[in-house]
Amino acid sequence: MTTSDIGERALISRLLARLPRPSPSLLIGPGDDAAVVRPGRAALQVLTTDALVEHVHFSRAWASPESIGHKALAVNLSDLAAMGALPRWALLSLVLPPDTPLSFVDGLVDGLAALGSQHGVTVAGGNVTRSPGPVVIDVTAGGEVAQRKFITRAGAHPGDELWLSGSIGGAHAALAMLSADEAPGPALAERLHRPTPRVRLGATIAAHRAARGLIDLSDGLGAAVTQVAEASGCGARIDADAIPVMAEAREWWNAKGVDPVQVSLAGGEDYELLLAVPARWGGRLRHLRRQVTDPPLTRIGTLTRDRALVLSRPGIETPLPGGFEHFHP
Amino acid sequence: MTTSDIGERALISRLLARLPRPSPSLLIGPGDDAAVVRPGRAALQVLTTDALVEHVHFSRAWASPESIGHKALAVNLSDLAAMGALPRWALLSLVLPPDTPLSFVDGLVDGLAALGSQHGVTVAGGNVTRSPGPVVIDVTAGGEVAQRKFITRAGAHPGDELWLSGSIGGAHAALAMLSADEAPGPALAERLHRPTPRVRLGATIAAHRAARGLIDLSDGLGAAVTQVAEASGCGARIDADAIPVMAEAREWWNAKGVDPVQVSLAGGEDYELLLAVPARWGGRLRHLRRQVTDPPLTRIGTLTRDRALVLSRPGIETPLPGGFEHFHP
Repeated sequence: MTTSDIGERALISRLLARLPRPSPSLLIGPGDDAAVVRPGRAALQVLTTDALVEHVHFSRAWASPESIGHKALAVNLSDLAAMGALPRWALLSLVLPPDTPLSFVDGLVDGLAALGSQHGVTVAGGNVTRSPGPVVIDVTAGGEVAQRKFITRAGAHPGDELWLSGSIGGAHAALAMLSADEAPGPALAERLHRPTPRVRLGATIAAHRAARGLIDLSDGLGAAVTQVAEASGCGARIDADAIPVMAEAREWWNAKGVDPVQVSLAGGEDYELLLAVPARWGGRLRHLRRQVTDPPLTRIGTLTRDRALVLSRPGIETPLPGGFEHFHP
Repeated sequence: MTTSDIGERALISRLLARLPRPSPSLLIGPGDDAAVVRPGRAALQVLTTDALVEHVHFSRAWASPESIGHKALAVNLSDLAAMGALPRWALLSLVLPPDTPLSFVDGLVDGLAALGSQHGVTVAGGNVTRSPGPVVIDVTAGGEVAQRKFITRAGAHPGDELWLSGSIGGAHAALAMLSADEAPGPALAERLHRPTPRVRLGATIAAHRAARGLIDLSDGLGAAVTQVAEASGCGARIDADAIPVMAEAREWWNAKGVDPVQVSLAGGEDYELLLAVPARWGGRLRHLRRQVTDPPLTRIGTLTRDRALVLSRPGIETPLPGGFEHFHP
């Protein structure tokens, strides 16, 4: 059965039936002209949108429908976490070719809804439209943050320490393996297909004001450092030996004769957070690390007055590898 | 020059430079991980998302880039108006094939921003991603409405009068003409390519509580009547002679030997509002009509206890033609 075998309304009814019970703050949910949400106590709204396009961001041959739905929401929750916001609601806009199997759509909605439930995110509404193809999954997510608590990428200063959550390189190595017709192990595949947005970490950083610059690593660590440094009018010196590259990724790149740090800096899709923290905020940072022990935080470098972006190894400094860019010639 | 000639960041910078100055309530605008908006005084958030897909909802051969951008926002503002909400912000998610001309993207953003400025809607953020095609323009819009003031499609009751804003049939006739290689006149083309969302009317209806059922006509009048009646547990009797079909559309269909009322009821994309109003609220309705004189309101029928959906002409009753459905076999 494909989406063209049933009418639009039957498809929407089917999808709505799969959603968990909405949060009580959702006064009017999917099915009317628009959704109505009662805002929480936090004073400011935080909004983001991100799309996954088939053949560009995912392949049905490589990822399950559930993991595609999970990721479509995860990348947006990661953006909210990078502002220090707690997520509240999501809207799902699906663009589907007529031959899309219903089982694909079912799994996608299940994966998205499961991640949403985990973080108290209610699916407030959405839209389904046909297309000659490819599948496009466009998610908009909204969250909340208290007045003056949100953290941008532009608030950092020279001298701030750069701290990174978790480890990087897993998603990029998994993608490289799949492209080479090798099967990534489960830990690597999870990083690519089912990234974990750092929702609790982001909100706790904001609540304790434990960083003054914050960004997620959707375009990779190199790009994130570049963006924080540029937005804050700084440079950066990153300590190559300090960068936590995921062990499975490190092994695989080493076996290929490729420098794991260099390739992982330039690879994208690490949904970790990068924090800029003044050295004198050490107490706040320790408090944060007691509150949120998973993922761990690692100090990887420093923002500098000099605008250069530098990867530092014992005895040698090289330009910091950049990140991923769409549309590049 | 196409989008593939410049990098993603250059494309985004180019688009941002075209946006008008954001509203002061936009604390963090496009360019960070997410946007931060200070909510207005109205207590509830209203949210909607709708996508335009090339070759499905628009054709670059038939519509200017500006009008495509205008329409992508207009269809969302119409959904907010149909809840009685005042629009506040929009997010723009663009999915673009690499050969998309920059002039197309420029025009699209200009058209969207111009309509936004007209209604105090700030473009808070967005996303650009590449795709093998087609162009997808996905807009999410947010608005506000006071506690207990929003109006759903489900609040109507048998006996309520059905009132329609403006006139219908223009967009459908224009599309039929284009499909027949005829050029629609400017008034008809405007209905198809640059629909006017009934923003002020919707918000004023809610402010004065002048209706207890409200919906927009994105899927056509037949579908709107069906949806209000079904959601409210009623039937409806529509007076065929009362339906305001746009004069230019009426003429064209008559010349083709097609019943203009029948075809316009089933056609979609009339972004008018349909109101369900109890007869005893006549005073509120008169007050509304003094407050908002354009578009005019016309009484076109009544909701009934009997669940049938009926088109009534002198001496004959026929089933009400339905609306447009995507994905229908």
